[in-house]
Amino acid sequence: MAKIALAQINPTVGALASNSELIIKYCQAAHEQGAELVIFGEMALTGYPIEDLALRPSFQQASKKALIDIARKLSKMHLGHIQVIVGFLDSSPTPESLGKPFGNPQNAAAVIQNGQILKTYAKHHLPNYGVFDEFRYFLKGDSGCNHEFAGLKYSLAICEDIWQDGDLKIAKASDLLIVINGSPYEEDKDDVRLALVQKRAREFDCAVIYVNLVGAQDELVFDGDSMAVNSAGDLIARAPQFKEALLIIDSKLTASTIEPPLAKHEEMYEALVLGLKDYVEKNQMPSVVLGLSGGIDSALTAAIAFDALGPNRVYGVALPSEFSSSHSLEDAKALAENLKINFREIPIEPMVQSFRDNLKVSGLADENLQARARGVTLMAISNQEGHLVLATGNKSEIASGYSTLYGDAVGGFAPIKDVPKTLVWELSRWRNEKAGKELIPVSSIEKPPSAELRPGQLDSDSLPDYEVLDQIIDAYVKRDQSALALAQVKDPALVSEVIKMIDRAEYKRRQYPPGTKISARAFGRDRRLPITSRWSEAPAGLSE
Amino acid sequence: MAKIALAQINPTVGALASNSELIIKYCQAAHEQGAELVIFGEMALTGYPIEDLALRPSFQQASKKALIDIARKLSKMHLGHIQVIVGFLDSSPTPESLGKPFGNPQNAAAVIQNGQILKTYAKHHLPNYGVFDEFRYFLKGDSGCNHEFAGLKYSLAICEDIWQDGDLKIAKASDLLIVINGSPYEEDKDDVRLALVQKRAREFDCAVIYVNLVGAQDELVFDGDSMAVNSAGDLIARAPQFKEALLIIDSKLTASTIEPPLAKHEEMYEALVLGLKDYVEKNQMPSVVLGLSGGIDSALTAAIAFDALGPNRVYGVALPSEFSSSHSLEDAKALAENLKINFREIPIEPMVQSFRDNLKVSGLADENLQARARGVTLMAISNQEGHLVLATGNKSEIASGYSTLYGDAVGGFAPIKDVPKTLVWELSRWRNEKAGKELIPVSSIEKPPSAELRPGQLDSDSLPDYEVLDQIIDAYVKRDQSALALAQVKDPALVSEVIKMIDRAEYKRRQYPPGTKISARAFGRDRRLPITSRWSEAPAGLSE
Repeated sequence: MAKIALAQINPTVGALASNSELIIKYCQAAHEQGAELVIFGEMALTGYPIEDLALRPSFQQASKKALIDIARKLSKMHLGHIQVIVGFLDSSPTPESLGKPFGNPQNAAAVIQNGQILKTYAKHHLPNYGVFDEFRYFLKGDSGCNHEFAGLKYSLAICEDIWQDGDLKIAKASDLLIVINGSPYEEDKDDVRLALVQKRAREFDCAVIYVNLVGAQDELVFDGDSMAVNSAGDLIARAPQFKEALLIIDSKLTASTIEPPLAKHEEMYEALVLGLKDYVEKNQMPSVVLGLSGGIDSALTAAIAFDALGPNRVYGVALPSEFSSSHSLEDAKALAENLKINFREIPIEPMVQSFRDNLKVSGLADENLQARARGVTLMAISNQEGHLVLATGNKSEIASGYSTLYGDAVGGFAPIKDVPKTLVWELSRWRNEKAGKELIPVSSIEKPPSAELRPGQLDSDSLPDYEVLDQIIDAYVKRDQSALALAQVKDPALVSEVIKMIDRAEYKRRQYPPGTKISARAFGRDRRLPITSRWSEAPAGLSE
Repeated sequence: MAKIALAQINPTVGALASNSELIIKYCQAAHEQGAELVIFGEMALTGYPIEDLALRPSFQQASKKALIDIARKLSKMHLGHIQVIVGFLDSSPTPESLGKPFGNPQNAAAVIQNGQILKTYAKHHLPNYGVFDEFRYFLKGDSGCNHEFAGLKYSLAICEDIWQDGDLKIAKASDLLIVINGSPYEEDKDDVRLALVQKRAREFDCAVIYVNLVGAQDELVFDGDSMAVNSAGDLIARAPQFKEALLIIDSKLTASTIEPPLAKHEEMYEALVLGLKDYVEKNQMPSVVLGLSGGIDSALTAAIAFDALGPNRVYGVALPSEFSSSHSLEDAKALAENLKINFREIPIEPMVQSFRDNLKVSGLADENLQARARGVTLMAISNQEGHLVLATGNKSEIASGYSTLYGDAVGGFAPIKDVPKTLVWELSRWRNEKAGKELIPVSSIEKPPSAELRPGQLDSDSLPDYEVLDQIIDAYVKRDQSALALAQVKDPALVSEVIKMIDRAEYKRRQYPPGTKISARAFGRDRRLPITSRWSEAPAGLSE
């Protein structure tokens, strides 16, 4: 019986040569397992999303050349009979230019076989919300693409094409809809995807094969979760999340391997691990360094780094000041010992004192000196030894502006920037449970959070209880609720105060390092607000 | 004879109450000059661009309420007879949702009179390239809007509507096309605009009134340059650039005031001044602080700040190290004296030494310590005294990555980030010529550029000649030329080296402060590249 392979691969943006090798390697492996149709994800050849690279004529040309080269190489390897469906960057010769200076880039899929490009299909629905800007990049396609394999008539679609009701370009009496995807992970999305794929199967009375990318690209993580359902909508195969996989099914679509989706905390945690791992690996960084305060944010970040890179590539630095409590240093040491990561201690007092001696500062300016002396120290270690600096701020801090620019905010990557504080605690407890031992010191989880920039300072001096803060952030940032709506369920004065904090911190967020998106709305390209803005959700409705 | 007022105003994003007051103030002033039709720019009521504020239902509602309030207030002031055309944020009740969770925001114009909203028009062509993301925000309009004033039949359009050939929604036999705009300044754009307006006038055989916003919003500067041409395409009125104006013309469109456009250097310089001024004023910052190295970048930045804010609100700080040459401090002092700005000197050696004593660093890591000690010092002064820190990096440095993250890159705003080094020199000479005296020390202009982070260091140790560097940046960044094309006119090895520098510095640029766009392609939202990318324009075509 004819077999079909769902190739869930992890390409790198712009790496046409190594992505091509990866595609050929998976074709070879699929062949060895008897498959004669191999399906890759959206823009698997170029990586995804490629942003303004799409607009470079040199890159458009290189993408098309790489596609032809793959077809020829497969033929030379005597694999030309295999039908390969792969996403790539096409450029259309149609006259419409959409105001684009060079060509008309298209987000496309090719069917290749026998050294030839048999057919191409251009994505029809271009997502242009949230993190997506596809109207900026691509000319949308306007025709369907139908072909057949082993007696199965199939139609092609790309990602967003199946999310919009109404006009899927699917041939009448298709047996199979093949959808190639670059669908980034966010909380609870896997459940939505399965339901959607089942819905389309029933709608068109045809089987659906859904192949997603896996791996991270800057702030996005693609979780894989490739799947197949039969025309009744029954799930017959599902690939694992967060790893490459080659899922083989037969052309009768009888049930095959079904990986169960991960539970909530494991899924988020694995997204964070892969997000960091791929940022480090794809940018070819040898190792990471981070400050270990003894607090929970740096502890969770260290655990994620440990899981992403192993202990030898993680460098923890305790940077105590005179306001650091003794338990802070102990907790930092215990964490490093538990994880067996590299560890050193550099007291910052002498450096802070030299600034104090030469500048007249007090209050917040003095507190920030400490955070910034830590930042300079971490960057110096990074410059000297070549590690990538990790910023350890969480979403609650970044939302409220409770962080110091060029202080604790320094870093090339911020692994937990989309993780609210309450979730930081949950994930830390979950990671310890999974380990079956204390990996993250329980005392770091249980003590009241403090920046320790002045004697006896607690986060609760400046911020509301994190349970409440996170609820307001969720409502205001993720769900665009107004202060008026929020004030009906929370203390209006508190709501107003938190919203002002969030609005005011926009300039800080603009300079914060990138970090993995796991929520339905992360800070960054997902939420684009002006820095200069006098709008506020004050109860009177009008601003100022 | 009936008179028409072109109200070129400077609204602030989100400031519905004060923008409404400004609109009413200009209606009053227009009335006093006998005008009965007053035309404001694109989204003059909300400010522009409002980015994701467009998606907030609370803001959509507040915009519509503010519009009705203006109509009512004008009536109460006995100005109800005036016909007012004003841009605002509308939201359409049509069922199509474009994937937007709340309502269908529209970039709209209203015609108001006698306390009523008579008509509305929604922008038809939504720009979605360069700095624009209007497909993200707005549902496009699909019908024209025609009305009349003093026997003139007019049609409405909004900005991009007239830039695209083909389907302006203009009534047959219109006497007048009224276009309201939020058209940001960039090099040479005023000439393009005039030619475009003249082309449309001749195409439709009708007069065209073009009203633009003025003022800055984050990285964009709106230069005004509002104008009117008659149906023969003759320019009959033109407002000044970079300032608010009320331009009165008669309904017969006889020639009126025609302000000449500014010459190249003055135009760019005024854009930079207004960009900084509005960032400071609209964010309600009292003053600015910047490091004065004695070099040309900080000198030009100081001159721009002086012109934007006056001498008393500008604080210069010399931050010499042991590698600073004596002329550096002298030039910094001379600059501060010439501009009469506040000045102090803080040697950074003790702070740098304390890091050296406590960290083992050498080479670049040691050089960066100096830049970062300066950054910490400027931020401490900012935190203590309330000034906004200005980063002084130019476009050549930001392109090539020749700057220190959290060092010279610290700041809330970067006035010359879109000014290449060769233009920094030109503008400095131009400013001195305009002053008729040495405002910027000639020695700062003429000496070879140096970061002075090690003995005898010169920029030319690490970078090609700035003339050549700027040409390659211009070709690669602004014109998307490939290395192959560039290598035909420049040394291929040099081209390759510079392109690699530019690609590698993407992570630094992502954390650089915002600054005024003056070129056809600024770094920032104008050019969106992935940080993680292995694409390079290496001659072989394929990457890695």
